[in-house]
Amino acid sequence: MLERCLGLRRLRQIQRACRRGSLTFLCLFLTVVVLRGTIGAGKFGTPEQDLNEIRHLYAYRSRRVEPHRVLEEAQPETTTNDANNYATFDISKILVDEAASADEPKRDPNAPYTLGPKISDWDEQRGQWLKNNPDYPNFIGPNKPRVLLVTGSSPKPCENPVGDHYLLKSIKNKIDYCRLHGIEIFYNMALLDAEMAGFWAKLPLIRKLLLSHPEVEFLWWMDSDAMFTDMAFEVPWERYKDSNFVMHGWNEMVYDEKNWIGLNTGSFLLRNCQWSLDILDAWAPMGPKGKVRDEAGKILTRELKNRPVFEADDQSAMVYLLATGKEQWGDKVYLENHYYLHGYWGILVDRYEEMIENYHPGLGDHRWPLVTHFVGCKPCGKFGDYPVERCLKQMDRAYNFGDNQILQMYGFTHKSLASRRVKRVRNETSNPLDVKDELGLLHPAFKAIKLPTSS
Amino acid sequence: MLERCLGLRRLRQIQRACRRGSLTFLCLFLTVVVLRGTIGAGKFGTPEQDLNEIRHLYAYRSRRVEPHRVLEEAQPETTTNDANNYATFDISKILVDEAASADEPKRDPNAPYTLGPKISDWDEQRGQWLKNNPDYPNFIGPNKPRVLLVTGSSPKPCENPVGDHYLLKSIKNKIDYCRLHGIEIFYNMALLDAEMAGFWAKLPLIRKLLLSHPEVEFLWWMDSDAMFTDMAFEVPWERYKDSNFVMHGWNEMVYDEKNWIGLNTGSFLLRNCQWSLDILDAWAPMGPKGKVRDEAGKILTRELKNRPVFEADDQSAMVYLLATGKEQWGDKVYLENHYYLHGYWGILVDRYEEMIENYHPGLGDHRWPLVTHFVGCKPCGKFGDYPVERCLKQMDRAYNFGDNQILQMYGFTHKSLASRRVKRVRNETSNPLDVKDELGLLHPAFKAIKLPTSS
Repeated sequence: MLERCLGLRRLRQIQRACRRGSLTFLCLFLTVVVLRGTIGAGKFGTPEQDLNEIRHLYAYRSRRVEPHRVLEEAQPETTTNDANNYATFDISKILVDEAASADEPKRDPNAPYTLGPKISDWDEQRGQWLKNNPDYPNFIGPNKPRVLLVTGSSPKPCENPVGDHYLLKSIKNKIDYCRLHGIEIFYNMALLDAEMAGFWAKLPLIRKLLLSHPEVEFLWWMDSDAMFTDMAFEVPWERYKDSNFVMHGWNEMVYDEKNWIGLNTGSFLLRNCQWSLDILDAWAPMGPKGKVRDEAGKILTRELKNRPVFEADDQSAMVYLLATGKEQWGDKVYLENHYYLHGYWGILVDRYEEMIENYHPGLGDHRWPLVTHFVGCKPCGKFGDYPVERCLKQMDRAYNFGDNQILQMYGFTHKSLASRRVKRVRNETSNPLDVKDELGLLHPAFKAIKLPTSS
Repeated sequence: MLERCLGLRRLRQIQRACRRGSLTFLCLFLTVVVLRGTIGAGKFGTPEQDLNEIRHLYAYRSRRVEPHRVLEEAQPETTTNDANNYATFDISKILVDEAASADEPKRDPNAPYTLGPKISDWDEQRGQWLKNNPDYPNFIGPNKPRVLLVTGSSPKPCENPVGDHYLLKSIKNKIDYCRLHGIEIFYNMALLDAEMAGFWAKLPLIRKLLLSHPEVEFLWWMDSDAMFTDMAFEVPWERYKDSNFVMHGWNEMVYDEKNWIGLNTGSFLLRNCQWSLDILDAWAPMGPKGKVRDEAGKILTRELKNRPVFEADDQSAMVYLLATGKEQWGDKVYLENHYYLHGYWGILVDRYEEMIENYHPGLGDHRWPLVTHFVGCKPCGKFGDYPVERCLKQMDRAYNFGDNQILQMYGFTHKSLASRRVKRVRNETSNPLDVKDELGLLHPAFKAIKLPTSS
């Protein structure tokens, strides 16, 4: 790497890069990492921490170029179709709609935005409902909360023709994981609140689902560009018994550094309770499109570490909310980094063969990531942050990596991680129930129906 | 209609049509129907029967042009991507695969095709497994069997760019229905047996799933081009307690007429039992691609009423199997026509507004069809049997018709049946649990967890 940095034939590239400063920093950093590895990693931290730091760099580099996407999105004449998030929309059409629609009174722009009428007794309301509806328990097994996985995409066809194909594979992937783990799915294709469009659309949706489904104990939001790559890993629900909000992230990066990628809101768990309604209310104000979101974006860029200039996004807003409101929220937020509730694809996808060689499903972490999240790829839209070919090829590999764990239950596997086609790896038998299900996924313990005696 | 038939300005069209004979027949038939309506429908049959007959005509007309599709599919140089069924494939690639693949020995073409080693004691094997696994009961409530809905599509992107978008909407539609009704989903994108490609691919898949999941009581196959349009209708499981195979169809059309559209295999229920394995084995032999399927096609065209010339398809084969084997199979086959387990789209989609005006969800029949099935549309491929625009527009309407039943749970609806956009129809409230859920779909009785005392 160092040689590549210093090689004469790359001089021009380096000059350009060094003017940006990133490559210089990367070279220096990698040098340090290599030295640490040589001298003795143990003395300087776990491979996981190194991994984290490199990941941060990659995530930073990917995010750095994101502004042009949101600038595109912010200009009514340009229509972008961003399926990295759920229900995107055509801004110019929305503006037309708002003008034409008689039955949706425009909100007074001076009045603060709210997700809905304030509710202060949700725990009581919900508790009473659960008592009255024992056939809809919030726990469906010992230590097994009822979970609703929520995801979605635009109601419009993708601008990129193959984009919808990847959305289809992505939802099949989620269907498979959720079927194995007894989790229900809500796939959203409706924009419920025109002001909260783009990445913010999840907030009204989540609130609506929590309030409509008191039987749901945890709502699991997952971006459409995130895929399950460990079909055997069951979320450690017990670990979160005293928490209401679980995201992948690092305490230091959020509370100390206020780093804008200190956590990720592409895959998180939110408990159905009053506290969650409150944090949704506290989270929402930076969301309304237009002046509010733009101004909020400036605040976030100023206040957070490394954040580029662009309108407020839900993830930065959450970092800010927690960093400035630690006392109010911190005790119920769990920033998880012992497994990949969200796993940045850049540092995972090239290692799948190594994982297959050395590890096995069920680990959920860097050895076999629960989730591989294709941040920045945007297969549905026109403008991604990475070369399209790299993204699509790696998305195929991640999909096949996960799909192989499903296919092996039935005696098949993909011919390679790059291939759509499957091959048989176990012959048919006249005693199918004697077949050893190696991963134990055909009838896993975490899916068995066992109603607890008390919730 | 008669006037139109005889009008001079249509003379040339009529001459062409009359040479085919179809329009003449249609005119005559419609005349009879109108007369029957005028004179007194009650004396001549139910509106449902008339509807049936017109539907047959439409289905016949749609199927008549299907041969060119299968001829295309049969020619290795042409690649078609037919997502009307599940896992399609690129024939030329398969041929290459078969040549190149060392680990999949070619079957002796003289040996009869089989789906797998003969199993004769499946009821015993399964019964024992259920006994040993009380946490995986085959009934999940009183009169509520455990059901697995199986569907799928090609692992390749659709040739038609919007095709994958419609597959995405179609699976979302199924996710919604199945979530409400406590049904699990298996979305297949793998071709398990190269010989059984196209519409036949469902057979090896179904067998594999039945044998792998003894806890499943009923497997519900559903084509990717079929959508749920009645979210409130629960299949009357009790009605089928003595049946093993439920398809939409008419006894007379199958057993008496041997009409090739006397039943539909695009949406059916198959019980997990020895009988079902046996009928799958009896069904399969016409399927293997190539000479077998071609020759079988000729037999079916000769033996069945109105069947065009093309290779054997699974539906025709089933008509033939039942018509010639009524004593062997008939007592366990239920041909259902009291609700639309499969509903031909042609006679349903123009009536949605009338349905909304006069009826309500939960009926499942011609008043509010459970399933609207877009036979012949083929949005994924290049060649459909109907104008693409008509198909896509109607698929949007059917999707929205069903989606409105989901959205109303949350206080929203599509702005029109043609519109992707949604509007609010119920305000937010601080007492969401007091809101009347009009269709009773938020917490329906058929989804409540109630383990029976005996299965």
